This record gives sequence, C-alpha cells and structure tokens, in this order.
Amino acid sequence: MSFNSFGQLFRFTTWGESHGPAIGCVVDGTPPLIPLAEPDIQHWLERRKPGQSRFTTQRRESDTVRILSGVFEGVTTGTPISLMIENEDQRSKDYSEIKDRFRPGHADYTYWAKYGIRDHRGGGRSSARETASRVAAGAIARKVLAHILGPSVVIRGALVQIGRQPIDRNRWRWEAVEQNPFWCPDPETVPIWETELDAVRKAGSSTGAVIEVIASGVPAGLGAPIYGKLDADLASAMMSVNAVKGVEIGAGFAAAALSGESNADEMTMEGGKVAFRSNQAGGILGGISTGQDIVVRFAVKPTSSILTPRHSVTTDGREVDVSTRGRHDPCVGIRAVPVGEAMMACVLADHLLRHRGQVGG
Amino acid sequence: MSFNSFGQLFRFTTWGESHGPAIGCVVDGTPPLIPLAEPDIQHWLERRKPGQSRFTTQRRESDTVRILSGVFEGVTTGTPISLMIENEDQRSKDYSEIKDRFRPGHADYTYWAKYGIRDHRGGGRSSARETASRVAAGAIARKVLAHILGPSVVIRGALVQIGRQPIDRNRWRWEAVEQNPFWCPDPETVPIWETELDAVRKAGSSTGAVIEVIASGVPAGLGAPIYGKLDADLASAMMSVNAVKGVEIGAGFAAAALSGESNADEMTMEGGKVAFRSNQAGGILGGISTGQDIVVRFAVKPTSSILTPRHSVTTDGREVDVSTRGRHDPCVGIRAVPVGEAMMACVLADHLLRHRGQVGG
Amino acid sequence: MSFNSFGQLFRFTTWGESHGPAIGCVVDGTPPLIPLAEPDIQHWLERRKPGQSRFTTQRRESDTVRILSGVFEGVTTGTPISLMIENEDQRSKDYSEIKDRFRPGHADYTYWAKYGIRDHRGGGRSSARETASRVAAGAIARKVLAHILGPSVVIRGALVQIGRQPIDRNRWRWEAVEQNPFWCPDPETVPIWETELDAVRKAGSSTGAVIEVIASGVPAGLGAPIYGKLDADLASAMMSVNAVKGVEIGAGFAAAALSGESNADEMTMEGGKVAFRSNQAGGILGGISTGQDIVVRFAVKPTSSILTPRHSVTTDGREVDVSTRGRHDPCVGIRAVPVGEAMMACVLADHLLRHRGQVGG
Amino acid sequence: MSFNSFGQLFRFTTWGESHGPAIGCVVDGTPPLIPLAEPDIQHWLERRKPGQSRFTTQRRESDTVRILSGVFEGVTTGTPISLMIENEDQRSKDYSEIKDRFRPGHADYTYWAKYGIRDHRGGGRSSARETASRVAAGAIARKVLAHILGPSVVIRGALVQIGRQPIDRNRWRWEAVEQNPFWCPDPETVPIWETELDAVRKAGSSTGAVIEVIASGVPAGLGAPIYGKLDADLASAMMSVNAVKGVEIGAGFAAAALSGESNADEMTMEGGKVAFRSNQAGGILGGISTGQDIVVRFAVKPTSSILTPRHSVTTDGREVDVSTRGRHDPCVGIRAVPVGEAMMACVLADHLLRHRGQVGG
Repeated sequence: MSFNSFGQLFRFTTWGESHGPAIGCVVDGTPPLIPLAEPDIQHWLERRKPGQSRFTTQRRESDTVRILSGVFEGVTTGTPISLMIENEDQRSKDYSEIKDRFRPGHADYTYWAKYGIRDHRGGGRSSARETASRVAAGAIARKVLAHILGPSVVIRGALVQIGRQPIDRNRWRWEAVEQNPFWCPDPETVPIWETELDAVRKAGSSTGAVIEVIASGVPAGLGAPIYGKLDADLASAMMSVNAVKGVEIGAGFAAAALSGESNADEMTMEGGKVAFRSNQAGGILGGISTGQDIVVRFAVKPTSSILTPRHSVTTDGREVDVSTRGRHDPCVGIRAVPVGEAMMACVLADHLLRHRGQVGG
Repeated sequence: MSFNSFGQLFRFTTWGESHGPAIGCVVDGTPPLIPLAEPDIQHWLERRKPGQSRFTTQRRESDTVRILSGVFEGVTTGTPISLMIENEDQRSKDYSEIKDRFRPGHADYTYWAKYGIRDHRGGGRSSARETASRVAAGAIARKVLAHILGPSVVIRGALVQIGRQPIDRNRWRWEAVEQNPFWCPDPETVPIWETELDAVRKAGSSTGAVIEVIASGVPAGLGAPIYGKLDADLASAMMSVNAVKGVEIGAGFAAAALSGESNADEMTMEGGKVAFRSNQAGGILGGISTGQDIVVRFAVKPTSSILTPRHSVTTDGREVDVSTRGRHDPCVGIRAVPVGEAMMACVLADHLLRHRGQVGG
Repeated sequence: MSFNSFGQLFRFTTWGESHGPAIGCVVDGTPPLIPLAEPDIQHWLERRKPGQSRFTTQRRESDTVRILSGVFEGVTTGTPISLMIENEDQRSKDYSEIKDRFRPGHADYTYWAKYGIRDHRGGGRSSARETASRVAAGAIARKVLAHILGPSVVIRGALVQIGRQPIDRNRWRWEAVEQNPFWCPDPETVPIWETELDAVRKAGSSTGAVIEVIASGVPAGLGAPIYGKLDADLASAMMSVNAVKGVEIGAGFAAAALSGESNADEMTMEGGKVAFRSNQAGGILGGISTGQDIVVRFAVKPTSSILTPRHSVTTDGREVDVSTRGRHDPCVGIRAVPVGEAMMACVLADHLLRHRGQVGG
Repeated sequence: MSFNSFGQLFRFTTWGESHGPAIGCVVDGTPPLIPLAEPDIQHWLERRKPGQSRFTTQRRESDTVRILSGVFEGVTTGTPISLMIENEDQRSKDYSEIKDRFRPGHADYTYWAKYGIRDHRGGGRSSARETASRVAAGAIARKVLAHILGPSVVIRGALVQIGRQPIDRNRWRWEAVEQNPFWCPDPETVPIWETELDAVRKAGSSTGAVIEVIASGVPAGLGAPIYGKLDADLASAMMSVNAVKGVEIGAGFAAAALSGESNADEMTMEGGKVAFRSNQAGGILGGISTGQDIVVRFAVKPTSSILTPRHSVTTDGREVDVSTRGRHDPCVGIRAVPVGEAMMACVLADHLLRHRGQVGG
C-alpha cells in the first residue's frame, strides 16, 4: 500500500504536519557506497525554501535537514536513510479562526469527511510543507542516478506559464532559470510576470502556473510495458504534488490535434546510434524511455488561500465567509519547480533500479 | 511491484500479446457474494470491440470472455477471478515485414532497447488489445461499486475532441453518446467529425482525441492524503492506457490561468448537506473525493500506424521507410472511451475498499 | 497487496479452484531472452502429479500446462507469462455430501466465516491442487536462477520424517531420492515408511511429515536486512503451502538448546575464499545468504480427510459426524516435496533480481 | 517492496542503526480518532528495555519515544505516525576492534558481502536494537485492535524454553509471567533457569530459547487464502526478528507425528456458536483465523556475542580469533518476548484492516 510512500525499489515514505514538531522522510533502497552528507540535501532544500522573494510565502524556515541513519563514514550503507527537518516558525495562532471552517479549494472538507478529524493548523498533513521531504528524497535520487549513470543525467525544471502568460519557448535559456525568482527560462517574460504577480499579491488574490521538467541523458529502456510505465509513474508523481491538476508528457494535450505524420517521431542513425528527428513523445514510447529528453509538464492551480472572502460552511453546518490571512504564496506554482525536479529524479532512480533488477546491466 | 498489475485492494493483473493464443487478466480482491456471470462482463467488452464502424480497426474479434475461477453458483467467492479472451483473428503474416523495423511512434524500439527482443506481431504486449482486459476488470469493478454503494454511482465517458475540433459543451447530452460511433455527447459535432475522419482515413493518416470520464454519486472521503491520492491514481490509470499523453482533473491545465477566486469552489449547505457552487476541482481536493462529480480528461495521440511512409531504422542499424498496412483505427482515441470508464471504475473500487479498510464504514 | 500473489520482482499470481474449469498462474518479472517451452515446466509438474504410487491420491490429472503469453520464438520476452492447467478429473459429485458440513482440519469453516460462501467441491480454492501453479512458477524460477548464476545452483528436496519415524541423516544419499515414492534420501528408511503408510492407509487414517529443501551454489549477499530477509521470505513461502504448521532454517528449533560456541559457525579461508566450518545458520545470517547451503525444513500436518468419522457442525449449526470418502493422500506431505523446492526457487529468483536491482552486479 | 517495511494496510517502516543518533519508525495506516499519547507506547518499550536484570545486556538506554506526527489533540488523525527514540549510550569505542573482523554467528560477513560496507558499531542495522521500533509499532497496533474489536483481544507472550530446559505446561500461570525476569509462566522453572543462566553468563557463553505468543479474542475470518495467509504472515513476522531460526503454529513440528484423527480439531456447538474441542491448528485453518486462540512459537538461537574466542576471518582475508567483549545478553531470547507480542499485534491489526476492506464489517 502506498498512502504515504512513493516508489518501489527506490522508495520513500514521508511523514509530518505543517505545524507539528518536525517533518521528514525515510528513503529506502538507496544502493550502498554512494557519498552522501547533509549539505548534498540541503543544497536542494534551499531552492524550495519559502521567503526567498516577495513572490513566495514569508514563513521563515531554515529547513535544516538532519540525516539520522543509513550513512556511515560519509557513504550510504544500503539501509534506510531517515531525514528530519524541524518545524521552526509554526505560529499556530494564525490558524485558530479557521479551525471550524472549511477553506474553499483546500483539503479541509475532504480530510474531515474522510477521517472525522483534521489538524487544521496550516493545513496539517495537506500543507505544501510536505514537499520539503520530496525535495530531500529527490536529492538522494539524484545521487543514485549520478552514481550509476555518471554525470550525463541532468534534471532541470522551469516555470513556463503564470496565469494566462506563457513564456516564448524560442527564447528558452537554461542559464536564465537561476537568475530570477520564477525559475523562468525566458528573461523577457520575467518583468511581465513581476508586474502581474505584484498586482495579484496586492489584490490578495492568487494565480496558477505551468511547470516543465526535463531530464536529459536518460538511457533508452527505462520503464515497463503496462502498469509500471515510466509516464504513468511520472503522471502519478506530479499529480501527487499539492495543487497539481494536470500532467502531460511531450506534446501532451496538443497531441490530440496532431496528425499521425507530425506526431510520430521519425528515427535515423547518427554516429552509429539511433536518433530521433523530433520529440513529440517526450522521450517515452509504450511506457519505456527512448533515450531522448524526458519532458513532463504539470499545471498548478492558483493558491487557494486568498484575502477575498469566499462562501463556505463550518464543521457544524453553518454558512460562513472565509478569508485566509496567514502568509501565503500568490503563486504556489513557483515553488513547485524544485518539487517537480525532485519527483522526476525519484521516478528515474526507481526505474533505473527496477530495470537493473529485471533486465540487468 | 506493478509491472503488469494495477490497484491495491482491488487489483488486477493482465497478460497476453496481440497475436498470442489469448489475453486475459486475474482480478483479485473482489468482495464475496456479488452476483457475476460472463454476460455482465461481455456487455462492456462489446462496447470496446473493434470493427463496429468504419472509424475503427476492421480486425474481427468476437472478444468472448470466459470466467475460469472465483465465481461459484453465480456469485463471487472472494478468490481471484481469472478471465480469458481467446485471440481469433491473428493474421500474423500482416506483420512479418515490420519484424526488423521500428515503426515510428510505436513501442517497437523501446521494447527492443529494454529487452533485446520483441514480439513484433501486432505490437505484441504493447498492442491496444490489452485494453480488453482492462474493460473486463472494469466490469467487475462496477459490480463492486454497485454492491457496496448501490446504483447511485454512474461512470460515463465521452469523446470531447477529435483533432482540432472540440464539442460544444453547452450541447452536452448523455443520451447522445450511445447514438453515434464516436461516443460524442454533442450531436451537432458528429457530422463534422465524420467528415474529418473520412478524410483522415482516406489519406491513410490518423488523428488524436480527448476523452472525458465522469463518475457521479461517489461519496466524499475516498482517496488518501499524499501518495495514495485519488487523482494521482487516476492520472496513473489513464496515462497507462495506450497512446495517452496527458491527463487532467476538473479545470486541469486551464486552472493555471484562473484566479484564486474563480478556482476555489465555494461551499454552501443544501438540504442539510454540504454542496458546492462549482466544480473546478473535478471532485477531488487534497487527493480525496468531495462528493461532487469526479471529472477526468485524457489526451490520446494519433494512431501511429499510418500509410504514409515515415523514416526509421532497422534492428541492425539501417535506415528505412516504414508504412503500416494492416488494419488500424484512424483515431484510436474513439475506442479509448470504454477503457477510460473501466479504469475510473477500477480506481474507485480500489479506493472504496481501501477506505473501508482504513476508516471503516 | 498479496492475497494471491507471491514475490516482488519475480512475482506470480495464482488462480483457480480444485473443481473449476482450470487453474493457473501469471508469472511476472521474468527477465527476457531465457529459453522456455512447455516441457521445461511439464517436467516439474510430473513430479508433483497425483496418482503415481499407492501412497498418493488416486485423482487422475494429466496436469498439462499451456503457456499462453510471455514467450516468443522459444524465449521469454520480459512480459508476463500466463500458464494454464485444465482440470480434467473433477468428479464434483464426490463432494456433494460435505456441501453443508465443515470438515475438521480443513479450511471449510474459516472460508465460510470469512466470506459467507465457499466452493465446497474438493476444497475449492483451499485445495492442494493450487500447488501445481506453484510448481509451474518454480520451474520458471529455476530457469531464471540458471540463466543468471549458471548451473551451479541446485535446489533439491527430500522427505526426512513420516509420522514419528525420521530418516538416519548419516545415510543421506541424494541419488536415493528419485528411487522411491517418498523422496526419501535414506534407502533403509523406505521399507519402514511403506509398512507404516500401508497401515495408515488401510485404517483410513493419515499421518504428517517433515520436508527438507536445500539450495546449493547460492552466492553470499542475497536477502535484505530487516523485513525483506531471505529467511523471513522462506518462512512465509513454506508456511503458505497447504497443511504446513512449522518452518525452520538451519539448526532451527534445535538452536534453542545450543551454546553460543556450538551455534556460531566459525569462518576460515579456503583457496582465498571465506569458508565456514559448520552450517548451523542454514546459510543465512541477518537475513542475508552466507554462500553456504540454504537449508529449510517444514512440517506438514496429517491429511485432514480421513475415513474415521469426526464430530463437526453444519452451516446451519447442527452437530454432525463427518468422514471424507473421496480420494486422498494418506500423507499429503509426500507431494509437498516438489512444492517446497518450487517455493525455494521462487524466493531465490526474487531475491536475486532484488539484489541486482539494489546493489547491481 | 519491503526491505524495511512490514504490513500492508497497517504498515510500519523502521530505520536506524545501533550507534547512530537515533532509531525510529513510521507507522502508516492507523485509523483516525484513536486516543494515543507517548505513555501508551512507552509502557511497552519499558518491557523490552535492556538492563532490567542481570540476565540482559547492561547497555543503558532510557528508550524514550517521541511522537513526531500523526496525532492531534490526543487522537490519531489517519496520517503517518512518526516515532523516534534517541540512542543515548552509544560507546562506539567498544566496537573498534571488531571493525575489520567478522564475528561468527553475526551478520557482519553477510552485510559486507552484500553491500561492501557495514556500520560495524554494535551491529549497525542488524542490531537487536531495531526491535524497539517494532515494540513501538506494536503498541499502536494494540490500540487499533482494541479500538475496533474492543478489549476482548489479549496478546500475551511467554518464554517456554531456555537451553534444553522447557517449562512444564501443566503449571502455566499467566500471572507468573510478570513476576520473574524471564517472562516464565511456570514459577517452578524460574530457579532452574536462574541457575543455568548464571552459569552461562559466568562462562562467557550464551544459550537459546523458545517463545510462545498467544492472541485470544481474535474473531474468525481474519487472513486470506493463499499468499496473504495469517500464518504465513506470522511466520514472516517472527522469522524477521533477530536470531530467530524457527516458527511454528499450534501443534507445529509435532503435527508431523500426529494421526489425522488427533490432529483435526473437532467442532461442536456451544451456546449457539461454533466451538472446537482442541486447538492443534493454533487458531488458523487454510490461512484464516478460526476464532480460537492464535498460538505461535519461535526459536531464538544463542547470542552470538560470546567471550570464548572463535575462529574467523577479516575483511582482508586474514584468519583471526574473535571474542566479543561489549555488553551482551546471555540469552537474547528473553527480550524477544515483547517483540514477539508486538509482531503478533501488528500482523493482526493489518489483517483486521485488510479483512474490513475486502469483506466489510
């Protein structure tokens, strides 16, 4: 069962609530003898950390990770790696007034409907804070990929749309991604988004986004035919991230409008190797990697916590208006970029180990 | 592991190749004492069956299912239900000429890259023929849902886009779906699609489609918070169907362009029960059902088998042109409608049993 | 979940009832390019087949296996292998009189208590007939082991006790095992067992047995530290076989009476390799193989179907006497030898693939 | 996969090494609204804690458990419960001299053979210290059982043999178990064991033991037919405990010597309910509970750490003598009693939830 675990051979289990003492995860299945220390993980957590620009939540968390097991004298041992991040800036009082009200767009009502109880403080288990554990697990997954495949595997994400404004893909420059607070690969779109998001933030509103994650250097042959498909696992991985409402691979939904001629990527030989003339498939055919870039996009809905009062109900059936003060991201999609990268890394590490088990090599 | 199995408590395992002696599946976890006979399954297989109009493949298969175990004196016993469908119209000779060539857009190359061997006849394991097993499992899943929840649960699918032409959602009529060869809910779009598809078929080309599946009457509370999310499982389910390149829930990718105000579905009380004023969420919040309609859409790429020659390579590294004669669907998305319904039924049945196990009731 | 499936990377799912149309299994996770044909499996099924001597049930089954998928042009393809064995000698009428009565020692009452229904014909799903599927899966597991490790791995089983009469281990000769109807490795014990079992059979009674299965040539390092221990999986494997009530590894229960000095196997170097001076551990330490012989023993209770009337109750709560006519083994343990071998092979194949996935090599 | 996880619907994942900063576990699948606080878990940890008599290791650990997630306002929420126990008395220097030598009977060599590295300090991951996590998970499992089934379920363990000396079962008194340092149910055997163990301890040797765990009040119907058998899961659970070499249910290995008449428990009606005249089956038939006491026994080998020098080898292939100073249990089986109880509780809680999911009620 997999209520709170993800993956098969490379498998992590996360735990923790937004305002409990800590959050964390147990990463099982990491091969032995891979150098690993806390800074390797901290590096990626820094990228996801809140409060780094005026466009993300002002919650202050150092997000300091501790390795509690599975590493000995600087290398992994093959035993489970337990990671813990203490919650520091909990300010539970911020949330007392929404204790008995269901915030529209949040998981408040559904948790209550399912369990008859919910930890309302900051969304409890449904808080995006859980994604820090994913990023930590993803850092280890990257180590696994590099250990087995060498440095050729590169996993990178970018924000390709905020609200109605997409980037211009012709201007895509990976170097740009690290140079603005949006992970935007198109420098000319940055000021447009800034203006837009400032307006959204001042209005107490929020907006959605689309993230694209690309893995380069993945060998052909990862995945499995039917229910262990690489794309099915990527779809599950991305859809499990908070606020995600859609996932697509390669041409994605646009493939519906293509002809068979333009959709099917032609093959050719290049330097003795199979090459493709296009990548509508997003690097996956029949659930198995082709050796091309693996391209995944996912849509994040607008942050549900907004200042504008919205109609809702209480746990005892009264109608109320709810507006969320607290500290929130005007566009939660921004911080989803490193999370998407991490999930890509975890899926690939898992499939790499599964492939090695089933086929060898 | 789940290479060829899907689900947890309601779990099916499929087997079989397009041109082997038979295909089938083992459905495990069906509760006992549910009336079940072959016609209950055959009914749904008929809907998926090829050769029913000029817009689907002319392969002739009676697709007759046999129940080999798990049913005694007309009811399920709780033991695994083995289903088998014999392959009748195998015509393996059709495929001999593509034995050593990789058809663009197909899984030929990736299977070969992974396994070093592939059953090339009709795509072997990667053939859409495998989806007959899904439909059969889905028929049992529907029985499980009806047995536990009563007749209120209704799962229906429709084709909402072929090529560039979407339906007009304002004209949506469920009755229309059964009255045309496209599962089209908008009667006025039917002749447009007919004209378009006839042209595509005559050109030896193909086109993609978008399918929408809706489950009504699902109670609030199904799903699980993080990695057992109902929407993550639906994404995995739909993405595992042949040729699917994108999946979305509720507003889906369009949610990226919404404001927080228009996205977050307001709640109200109706007749003493929680109700929603809109359904952008597609019936799922935080991975758990809200009690509203569950709405999933998925995009199917154009059939990769086309008459137009496409550039490709052979298993021994020569460049060749490939055109697929055989019998093929100009729009494989049409026959994906009953498959999408079946996967929805299987996911819901699984989550219903999981919910019952974890929370009771 | 694993109600009817066993294993992780090498995983099989069985289905079928004693008196349904057929039984079978789906074997998933077999690596590609392993030569496999029906006779490879049939060979091992012959050893388990009933009716081969007066000491086993006279039910006549040819137990002919068919491969329905997963093999192409004589080799495995990496896709699931579906195996089917038709039930021929069903004689359901034999069982009509026990339809409403719970046979003591059988699973009649517990199935009924769990499911509210049972296929009473020949025990339905709880019949030892299911073990034919295990033997078939085990035949493929042996192929996997030989393919990866070469011919050095040898898995052999023997009966080491019938009733109160154990063999003399000093007379153990593997050649003898195939030369008597008991798989007895000690020729001098054979006539004693014959006399004993003839008496048991004539009295309409039954007796239990102990089976030992040994795997030689297994490399060190298979298994996993805590809940994926090789010995824990072997214990689960053997205990899941019908009528088994105990499992032990190496010295087993006798280890309780040993001193630390006599129990801990000393190590030494032999020809540059680690060797052991004894094998109390049965080839497993900390859940991981040592490279020594893996030694498992399991106890099988006496056949519960006996002629002597036994007190019991009916489904509607009346007290009755039950005696089982039908055709039965006076010592069901005899036919458990090939089943135990098969389960050993399946566990080892699974762990070999898991090891390869997690550690490589 | 289940390298470090146990169970399906009630599932726990343990982590941590003997001499790392902490150990712990994540318990997933606990139903909501069950009162739970740290003392509920601490109570059972106290029973397992080392250093409570001269017959167990003198390592000093307060074994204080912290709940880090999954509990809100005193009750479970249905989300994963993370438990952590800090390691206090680590004394790593004790172990430096065995860094490069494989201690006979320990998992030193096998971890090294598998992973190419081992945390040698106190056995690292293979230390019995991991069982504290099991006891903690078991405490939650007991809560689940009581919550769903009421207080009728009682799980108790006892030591029934040390070395060659078994108890006299006619003198079994459960009250006695808590009144001696051995969990011995037979007061007259206590002084015999004291004398024996004092001698063993003074000789720097060790001895094995047999533990029996009994669960009363378990309803009929828990378990599953074939590979989810209750007894197979119990066998796996007990065999996964450190140093266990054998597991048996009910009559166990003695069943091999019984006749069919004496083995098959006769049934009768008592007060309108099915009752049994004996319990050779140990409460399980066909893998499903009968409603009788569930009876499991397991054998623990003698502690491998002994003062007497034993022959062994080093990581670089030299022959050496190894004697283990450190602090050790002369009979590690004693502290296995609460561990066995905990595993019984976990298996039953898991099967209870699985039954509820699959069959309802």
